Amino acid sequence: MASIVITARMTTTRCFTSAAKSVARTAEPHSTTCRSPGVRRLTSLPAPRWFFRGAGVRFVSQGGAGRTSPGRTGRGALVALAGAAAAAAVFVANASHFQRAEMATTVPRVVQREEEEEEGDIVERCKALMSPPVTDVRVLQRRKGEMSTRMEMLIMETQAEFCRALEKVDGGTFNVDRWERKEGGGGISCVLQDGKVFEKAGVNVSVVFGNLTEEAAKQMTSRGKVLKGKDGKLPFCAMGVSSVIHPKNPHIPTVHFNYRFFEIEEEDGSKQWWFGGGTDLTPVYVNEADAFHFHNTLKEACDKHHPQYYTDFKKWCDRYFYIRHRAETRGIGGIFFDDLDSPTQEEAFSFVRSCARTVVPCYLPIVHKHLTDSFTAEQKHWQQVRRGRYVEFNLVYDRGVKFGLATPGSRIESILMSLPLTARWEYMHEPAKGTLEAGTLEVLRNPKEWV
Amino acid sequence: MASIVITARMTTTRCFTSAAKSVARTAEPHSTTCRSPGVRRLTSLPAPRWFFRGAGVRFVSQGGAGRTSPGRTGRGALVALAGAAAAAAVFVANASHFQRAEMATTVPRVVQREEEEEEGDIVERCKALMSPPVTDVRVLQRRKGEMSTRMEMLIMETQAEFCRALEKVDGGTFNVDRWERKEGGGGISCVLQDGKVFEKAGVNVSVVFGNLTEEAAKQMTSRGKVLKGKDGKLPFCAMGVSSVIHPKNPHIPTVHFNYRFFEIEEEDGSKQWWFGGGTDLTPVYVNEADAFHFHNTLKEACDKHHPQYYTDFKKWCDRYFYIRHRAETRGIGGIFFDDLDSPTQEEAFSFVRSCARTVVPCYLPIVHKHLTDSFTAEQKHWQQVRRGRYVEFNLVYDRGVKFGLATPGSRIESILMSLPLTARWEYMHEPAKGTLEAGTLEVLRNPKEWV
Repeated sequence: MASIVITARMTTTRCFTSAAKSVARTAEPHSTTCRSPGVRRLTSLPAPRWFFRGAGVRFVSQGGAGRTSPGRTGRGALVALAGAAAAAAVFVANASHFQRAEMATTVPRVVQREEEEEEGDIVERCKALMSPPVTDVRVLQRRKGEMSTRMEMLIMETQAEFCRALEKVDGGTFNVDRWERKEGGGGISCVLQDGKVFEKAGVNVSVVFGNLTEEAAKQMTSRGKVLKGKDGKLPFCAMGVSSVIHPKNPHIPTVHFNYRFFEIEEEDGSKQWWFGGGTDLTPVYVNEADAFHFHNTLKEACDKHHPQYYTDFKKWCDRYFYIRHRAETRGIGGIFFDDLDSPTQEEAFSFVRSCARTVVPCYLPIVHKHLTDSFTAEQKHWQQVRRGRYVEFNLVYDRGVKFGLATPGSRIESILMSLPLTARWEYMHEPAKGTLEAGTLEVLRNPKEWV
Repeated sequence: MASIVITARMTTTRCFTSAAKSVARTAEPHSTTCRSPGVRRLTSLPAPRWFFRGAGVRFVSQGGAGRTSPGRTGRGALVALAGAAAAAAVFVANASHFQRAEMATTVPRVVQREEEEEEGDIVERCKALMSPPVTDVRVLQRRKGEMSTRMEMLIMETQAEFCRALEKVDGGTFNVDRWERKEGGGGISCVLQDGKVFEKAGVNVSVVFGNLTEEAAKQMTSRGKVLKGKDGKLPFCAMGVSSVIHPKNPHIPTVHFNYRFFEIEEEDGSKQWWFGGGTDLTPVYVNEADAFHFHNTLKEACDKHHPQYYTDFKKWCDRYFYIRHRAETRGIGGIFFDDLDSPTQEEAFSFVRSCARTVVPCYLPIVHKHLTDSFTAEQKHWQQVRRGRYVEFNLVYDRGVKFGLATPGSRIESILMSLPLTARWEYMHEPAKGTLEAGTLEVLRNPKEWV
């Protein structure tokens, strides 16, 4: 996760970033509180709207795959990049199936048509977020139709929707940190730690931009494309939302999602762009019904866009979240994709939006279902051992984490908020045959088809 | 640590490896017990001898630095390599200063002259080990004068000496696992977990050999030397002892050591060889007197061999055990060196032996000093946060761990036994100014000279 949480200041030294100052000045109803020197919290936000919507995806072709022609967007230097970060795990949520029985009783619903999403007033929509967006709201309003604006609003709304749903079930409140990236952009990290239900819940948004050298751009494009910059410089923009939720109860699984967008501008003003993302589940005890619900919800979101997406992206997920030295997957998977630049930018975005809206309906029903499950000390112990494996994957293999840690000036706290609060490593730990723990390991060693 | 714990079977399926079978047959007083299917424990070993010795290092020149001429050793294919693993942390212990007051009351002493070390009967010396050595005892006896034999006995005796000292203070018993490496060699992993004093104590020995391709050899020699093999094959041998001890009491620091030897044979039968190693301390709370004792003991061991060794290897240690993304060292350092192939093999070995014998006198006095220190829940909490940093270093930066995890067939449990039993990650954790915790961080952010 946190693949594009890069080169940011370690702490935020002002209550609002420069990008958000104008919003603060226009008397937004966000009040601010400070937790510790240098770190600001935004609390007392107005009640969130729910961003669940029905079906009705519009496909609007917008030029060649992964490429828009010069002058299409007016964002100046804020163009996007994939980069090495594109190799990371990133995921979004599709909430079009919010009608599930489990959800109906616990989550407020605001059904809207798909088209409504981008028709609302930006300033009005921002009131429901966890914090003002990274980009100045007036800039977003002015560039309402641009992909970077639409994606920034989507990731901010996904963050707010998910955080509110978790707060509702936990009873606790997310701490909200805004941070700046010296070279351009910044982020909003929401963390709920040691809550009633969640051991550690982190939901991070980042929007970063700047210039890459041609050499850096070449290294950073996973497709190995040689890109030509103006005077050797390639303006880029990268944004995403990523989250890892570690619950206390070992019967409630850990979830991870990450959805991102990259844009990079070449010498002639044309832009390379792509999306990436995914959502995956890591249970401590595998529950077949939960696994079906989770995968089926993702499949339904995928099927609206391409009959092959679920199959391909499920496989990709199993391959990506693989702890090679243990010969086991991190969890029971979900979907994972990268370098998505077809069939059109509009369709790719529409798919990513569907995925982003699936996070809450994928996960919250499972949380509610196991909320009051009792558990033993042995089950808690097994959870801690599995948490250790989670740490192993994230520190040893996750390309987003590796890229973030290797990048000077990264915001380490946002990158490592994916780690659990507590973990355990026992020498030669192996569950006894026939136990539930051994059953879980069996599934992790032999990924299954769930739908 | 565990830099050469590579390409081994995941579990030992026989009570003794083939290499040790002959020893078992000669009615060695080791009895065996089995903990779980496929894993054998060697327990009820006879009481250990103590390997502390006085001064009197002999320097015997033995040819050109880092190179011995063809035919000098008769070990056939068992020649040594440094390889990428040479980049790892590896350490041994020098016990020539065992007379410290703290030790005198708690540790049995068997003072021997330096020369006695290799004069004892190999079979007799093996009785004091944690397990029969990896190499057949009769082979060791026959090749008594060879460096590979002398080093294997040194690492085995270092393991036994350290394990016995820890058992004595803890009251618990090390579990002993023997494991085989399909391609050649194997190891002995000793682990004491959840003891009275130690949360997790691991002491591992490995002796591996086989053939490298020229390309692999080139990649593996940190000095980038191009080595010419017979028919493209380069026989190698790598061996070492490595250990990490995580105590329960936050006032007792974690210690790590690792000492290793590599040999690689070229086409003309000549051998490239080198040593590496070090010992370093990771306190949860920095104690100036402990730091002085630890560093001064290492300095005295170094000074016997070269006036520059301590200064140079102390700096190397601070550079190596650096958590770059946190901008802090893992602990307060010690010594670290690699590629040591001068002035002669005999002198390099003598230095490594001095270091190996310093492990117990470096560490045990500190353990005894703080054995009954009381601690608060807050101090335990800080220990867990520091344990998290230990995990970060080991999984993200340690070259030995990275090399081990990336090598198919590695014995993962031996590589990862360096991880603590428990660890913690809190978002934005920063100790309050003026606290002991902040004082520790200050030292980790600005490495000090302790002697």
